[in-house]
Amino acid sequence: MGSLDFKEGLVTAVVREFKSGDVLMVAHMNEEAVLKTLTTGLMHYWSRSRRKLWLKGEQSRHFQRVRDVFVDCDGDALLFDVEQTGGACHDGYRSCFYRKVKRGKSVRVLKKVFSPKKVYR
Amino acid sequence: MGSLDFKEGLVTAVVREFKSGDVLMVAHMNEEAVLKTLTTGLMHYWSRSRRKLWLKGEQSRHFQRVRDVFVDCDGDALLFDVEQTGGACHDGYRSCFYRKVKRGKSVRVLKKVFSPKKVYR
Repeated sequence: MGSLDFKEGLVTAVVREFKSGDVLMVAHMNEEAVLKTLTTGLMHYWSRSRRKLWLKGEQSRHFQRVRDVFVDCDGDALLFDVEQTGGACHDGYRSCFYRKVKRGKSVRVLKKVFSPKKVYR
Repeated sequence: MGSLDFKEGLVTAVVREFKSGDVLMVAHMNEEAVLKTLTTGLMHYWSRSRRKLWLKGEQSRHFQRVRDVFVDCDGDALLFDVEQTGGACHDGYRSCFYRKVKRGKSVRVLKKVFSPKKVYR
């Protein structure tokens, strides 16, 4: 896939919904997360806060199945088109970008697709 | 806009072409870059390699004019819809994600829209 440039061990992953093209989330991947993602076809990330490998959906069952992968010019970012089960955002939204900035304030522009309380127990 | 979480001083910026919705690039912003971007309406970044604030287009004249801004759930990533003059990628493409990964190899899927040699002299 061309050589990746893991800056401080990580590349940035932008994740897009395959059908709509909507941006769902941004996360980070170490080399193991990239390999696991490419070999299993399911998105894996490196959690910077928990400092561990993380299969997206391991708790929520909201898996992300990889359809297409793009790599950027300098090899430190990957763009994934995925089929998203449920919602990508732990707040219950399809996308983590559910707030639009208007005149310096953020306004919610998406509706919840699941209840975080029920999914993350 | 809600409080941002500058991890090691930076948030991740995903930049999308306003009309097409195509993802153009991923870059990083420190607080000054966010403020400059919001006050001028032109994308500014923090260059991690050059360790300096950077107005996108300052050399190429390929400016990015901000149309919409979204913030993610945990405030460490911003999504910008922009009007892109010329191309976003210093390699001469509209988008930095001009390579698709196919069977472990990267294949160019976009055509150049400008000559880097002519633009970056």
